[in-house]
Amino acid sequence: MSALKNDTLLRALLREPVAYTPIWLMRQAGRYLPEYNATRTRAGSFLALCKSPDLATEVTLQPLARFPLDAAILFSDILTVPDAMGLGLYFVEGEGPRFERPLREEWAIRDLRAPNPVEHLGYVLDAVRQIRRALDGSVPLIGFSGSPYTLACYMVEGEGSSDFRHTKTLLYRRPDLLHRILEVNARAVTDYLNAQIEAGAQAVMIFDTWGGALTPYAYREFSLAYMERVLSGLKREREGRRVPSVVFTKGGGLWLEDMAAIGCDALGLDWSVDLGSARQRVGEQVALQGNLDPAVLLGDAQAVERETARLLAAYGRGSGHVFNLGHGIPQYTAPENVAALVDAVHRLSPVYHA
Amino acid sequence: MSALKNDTLLRALLREPVAYTPIWLMRQAGRYLPEYNATRTRAGSFLALCKSPDLATEVTLQPLARFPLDAAILFSDILTVPDAMGLGLYFVEGEGPRFERPLREEWAIRDLRAPNPVEHLGYVLDAVRQIRRALDGSVPLIGFSGSPYTLACYMVEGEGSSDFRHTKTLLYRRPDLLHRILEVNARAVTDYLNAQIEAGAQAVMIFDTWGGALTPYAYREFSLAYMERVLSGLKREREGRRVPSVVFTKGGGLWLEDMAAIGCDALGLDWSVDLGSARQRVGEQVALQGNLDPAVLLGDAQAVERETARLLAAYGRGSGHVFNLGHGIPQYTAPENVAALVDAVHRLSPVYHA
Repeated sequence: MSALKNDTLLRALLREPVAYTPIWLMRQAGRYLPEYNATRTRAGSFLALCKSPDLATEVTLQPLARFPLDAAILFSDILTVPDAMGLGLYFVEGEGPRFERPLREEWAIRDLRAPNPVEHLGYVLDAVRQIRRALDGSVPLIGFSGSPYTLACYMVEGEGSSDFRHTKTLLYRRPDLLHRILEVNARAVTDYLNAQIEAGAQAVMIFDTWGGALTPYAYREFSLAYMERVLSGLKREREGRRVPSVVFTKGGGLWLEDMAAIGCDALGLDWSVDLGSARQRVGEQVALQGNLDPAVLLGDAQAVERETARLLAAYGRGSGHVFNLGHGIPQYTAPENVAALVDAVHRLSPVYHA
Repeated sequence: MSALKNDTLLRALLREPVAYTPIWLMRQAGRYLPEYNATRTRAGSFLALCKSPDLATEVTLQPLARFPLDAAILFSDILTVPDAMGLGLYFVEGEGPRFERPLREEWAIRDLRAPNPVEHLGYVLDAVRQIRRALDGSVPLIGFSGSPYTLACYMVEGEGSSDFRHTKTLLYRRPDLLHRILEVNARAVTDYLNAQIEAGAQAVMIFDTWGGALTPYAYREFSLAYMERVLSGLKREREGRRVPSVVFTKGGGLWLEDMAAIGCDALGLDWSVDLGSARQRVGEQVALQGNLDPAVLLGDAQAVERETARLLAAYGRGSGHVFNLGHGIPQYTAPENVAALVDAVHRLSPVYHA
């Protein structure tokens, strides 16, 4: 593979010196881009887009053609893993993901098995290889997975939820069954991320979208412990470099100290955390990735500039910060605002690295 | 009015000695109770229920007839205030509240006025008076309002939202207009709570359901500052006793120190915060109310007992804790579990007050 021309992201995730703060954006390939919508229409559905390595490669590269971002992130969906477990993923237009066979019965939970990623998620691995070839060493490629707990939420609920009624009923009535699902998920996520690394992912991120809806006690037992297990099983080196890992629990701002101790290289932060206090709290343990309120991109150019400057100042001098949003780019974002954001980060950050 | 027989709640909110930890539950009059559903059916709609002092009194008292709770909370809805401002509140069955005229135009924002509660919210004040008579001094009655920011979210979005797109667009494009709404709301909430106190509310709570979706900087400027303004305008005494105030920002666990400093007597906590650390952080400034995960009520009797014991131990010895959930009672709760919870709190807490 070609030597990496821009390794700023990988260096920042390992808290090595950089010339400026790197930036990439969650959901940078998404519905705010007209070219993404065109490809999605061509694919016929979101799932067909995820399952076609050609089209997944195409949309992964689209934001990089527009903006000088410091990383690409694999275009895929966290629910491909439970889909590969046989739960039957489908999407209802305008309503989000659903599973044909939500995981509620004890026999089904006992029958659950971690899929072999080469066999069942080959289309993702093909996309990783194809994107790496297309990137040709310009910027690193980030692979990702949902966390064991977040996947369990979708698997048990069968769809998105605001209260996680079924998952939490299991948690407070049959914790043994929830642990059984999480053990299988931890195995599945470990194998899946390792297969992505094997195929060419140069950093990996675990999205724990729903761990923040737990109590601090349940978070440690049902989400954090299983992310720790995944991290302990990850391949850490590839192509002679460390493959940094990022853990992101949305709504987990109160638990950063616990998260920093599970063996990841960086923490993703949502926008509820002050970046300066977060840095103080985690010290030298991990880098930090985040944490602009995505809604700033709905504001005007002055708001983008002001809030960017605020975050850079809050983090302060030195490496260990990867600029990102605190959640995905809103669908209604004007692409000009993304351009302004990337420009502001690249223009305003070098002074903090001088 | 009759002398108060059980003043444990009021004493705990002021961190005065108590014999046991008092308990009430957010949404204790709600859809998990068959008798509530019967009254609601009789009323014809949720809004008709809110607007009838007789029926509001009836449902306010229902949970007290079943469980030895230490407080009643006025049955009403936070959106009665914007309704009184002329936005046209209505409910779509199964989809939650909507406004006929969401607040999006500059002229409409400039025209917005705080309603006179006696004139426009008389049905709430009638309910307060009627509930007080019916309670006959058995337990105190809590009044409440939405926070200025939370009301603004509903007023601008016109309905519930997961991303507050319109509100945040205003925040990041026209903060002057959002401030204008918040000024009117702060006036309206102050007048409304004072009218409730005048009518007989013995404690008041401000529900800031959506402040937690802000950045720390925006929270201080757009939510906290206006709750502080409300608090500074509240009548603090009635019937020779202090009327304690509780501020609850859902998702505000990172900002407790800031919240404790705005002049309230207690903070409501959602279940993401460890109660022991919260107590350490706020010190002697305020009492704490919370913070059981409502989903524990979907668990079995052992889970209810175990999680109750955990919270009581986390708070530790001494007054200043009001037991509650971290959010409203789930609709699917078995009333037996509520009975078990109230019993567990009353049975397990005296040792912490000996």
